[in-house]
Amino acid sequence: MVDYVIYGRGSFNQLDEILSPHRKRDLPIIFLIDHFFKGKPLANKTPLRGKDKIIFADVTYEPKTTYVDEISNQLKEEFGTVSGIIGVGGGSTLDLAKAVSLMMTNPGSSADYQGWDLVKFPGVYKAGIPTLSGTGAEVSRTTVLTGPTRKLGMNSDFTPFNQIVLDPLLTANAPLNQRFYTGMDCYIHCIESLQGTYINEFSKSYGEKALSLCREVFLEKDNWNDESDDKLMMASYTGGMSIAYSQVGVAHAVSYGLSFLLGTKHGLGNCIVMNHLDEYYPEGAAEFRKMAEKNGVEIPQGICRELNDEQFDAMINVSLGMKPLWENALGRDWEKIMTREKLRDLFEKL
Amino acid sequence: MVDYVIYGRGSFNQLDEILSPHRKRDLPIIFLIDHFFKGKPLANKTPLRGKDKIIFADVTYEPKTTYVDEISNQLKEEFGTVSGIIGVGGGSTLDLAKAVSLMMTNPGSSADYQGWDLVKFPGVYKAGIPTLSGTGAEVSRTTVLTGPTRKLGMNSDFTPFNQIVLDPLLTANAPLNQRFYTGMDCYIHCIESLQGTYINEFSKSYGEKALSLCREVFLEKDNWNDESDDKLMMASYTGGMSIAYSQVGVAHAVSYGLSFLLGTKHGLGNCIVMNHLDEYYPEGAAEFRKMAEKNGVEIPQGICRELNDEQFDAMINVSLGMKPLWENALGRDWEKIMTREKLRDLFEKL
Repeated sequence: MVDYVIYGRGSFNQLDEILSPHRKRDLPIIFLIDHFFKGKPLANKTPLRGKDKIIFADVTYEPKTTYVDEISNQLKEEFGTVSGIIGVGGGSTLDLAKAVSLMMTNPGSSADYQGWDLVKFPGVYKAGIPTLSGTGAEVSRTTVLTGPTRKLGMNSDFTPFNQIVLDPLLTANAPLNQRFYTGMDCYIHCIESLQGTYINEFSKSYGEKALSLCREVFLEKDNWNDESDDKLMMASYTGGMSIAYSQVGVAHAVSYGLSFLLGTKHGLGNCIVMNHLDEYYPEGAAEFRKMAEKNGVEIPQGICRELNDEQFDAMINVSLGMKPLWENALGRDWEKIMTREKLRDLFEKL
Repeated sequence: MVDYVIYGRGSFNQLDEILSPHRKRDLPIIFLIDHFFKGKPLANKTPLRGKDKIIFADVTYEPKTTYVDEISNQLKEEFGTVSGIIGVGGGSTLDLAKAVSLMMTNPGSSADYQGWDLVKFPGVYKAGIPTLSGTGAEVSRTTVLTGPTRKLGMNSDFTPFNQIVLDPLLTANAPLNQRFYTGMDCYIHCIESLQGTYINEFSKSYGEKALSLCREVFLEKDNWNDESDDKLMMASYTGGMSIAYSQVGVAHAVSYGLSFLLGTKHGLGNCIVMNHLDEYYPEGAAEFRKMAEKNGVEIPQGICRELNDEQFDAMINVSLGMKPLWENALGRDWEKIMTREKLRDLFEKL
């Protein structure tokens, strides 16, 4: 679990106080901030001391193992080590911060640690401050990275943040489409978790709460206001807890294929896939479309139209590699159900 | 937050594996087990190695600072220090385990640390395994102790468990009345938290989930079964999280007075008080009585009938000392609302 959780509007202003016990000698704290905030007020409010440094994270693409290695190697060269890594941004930035923290103390390349329980040493102190709600990256024990051969996280007991600061004020100015796609990541987590074979009462309690918060925000309320930001931030947290104790399913497995080949961003990719998952999640897919309609968001169609066999194969390989996701969604005999042909048909529909 | 959480039926069987990374040299692990389990199968299933030891905790009375000091001093004398303290039982045993862990490394008496953020050093490794659901002691950052002058917890960042094992199987054989009283502790947490002035969206999400689980278990279901144990264990956890991020209220403040003077157990005390709180929590008090009726449990009446002025004063002093609880319940001007006279009237009704 994350060691310390602060929740509250304006809690970002307590950051200096929160970080100060974690400063080691004169070693700097590195703030990895989503480049979206370059020149925006948030960057100026970041409490820099001594050799502290802001690195604006380029999250045009989701984090790659090469980018993680580049940042951590630069930091090692410049400072030897650092007091901590603070991620401020959406899921990509948070995952990047977790991965860089781990690579400050683990030898080799982050690609060596894509998988389950491969990380050997705790990273340096790390904190996460989400500025978009939905991914659950703030509570997950993974950090999703695109490596040379796969899109897969560094899943380990050392991966969760030591501290998170949940300040709904930071999410207030998110672009509308982006907010919807990321929010739907949470909604889809709930559907996949609650309808999965890995479900248990712990995961269910969190998933049900997240689901009801998503419904309040995206279906019941007619206007977006502060309360929407408050609730969606809690939906993200509780949805993230739900999948941490169970697993995601078909939408994520297929969407990982899209983002590996086409670079489709995770939230958007999940939406594109969910739009066509009536066979697996009939009520979820229908409710998802209702949410898109109510929030005036159009889901792209036909993104696989021009792909060739080789490209379909690459996506199918990445997707079928996500074994625990398929097993959660379709049970132990999932390989008999989700054949390459059936999956190809699904990709073609997208 | 608790560092590691395991939830699942039968997860108690993984205890040996869970504890093994935390064994230091040949220092023993001490299992503090509720004396209710003396001679019962649970005690035999406890994974003892080397110099490990079971201490059956006498929880006839709720934990006293003298009892905490006695156990920790004995352990220091016998072993110098220990690898860890594992609490297995209801709220009293869990609180006792947390307090003993802290007193293995903090000098003096546990009475010196009753209050907020007085604990100086992290304790030895500690794990909690609830066998009754409702108190939320498994996730709280306090350990409620009766000291020479007050009933008050050692509230600190060092207080939460490092590990909890939530195994609903362990709660299956709880005595019916006990189960109800302890379950109502959770229900009352929710009412007090959700209707308190300290409420925020984080606490609210947890409180609402806990409340709906309590309703499922105590109102909607006609028979107690495995699912009831599963859900009540999650209600306890989520209810505990809710008050960890807000505060309890009138029922707890008054019930602390009862248990200080009369030794009334916490869950039962809360029930006795809630039965008469229609002025503060009208719907909560009514629903509470419905739950008692449906579950065939009678709430004692007239327990203060024979008390004298001095005794009433002692209870009133303890109760009014719980300032944050009153402020949460009645707002900043609570002292104008809850006068000594008004509180005396309330105690007399119980």
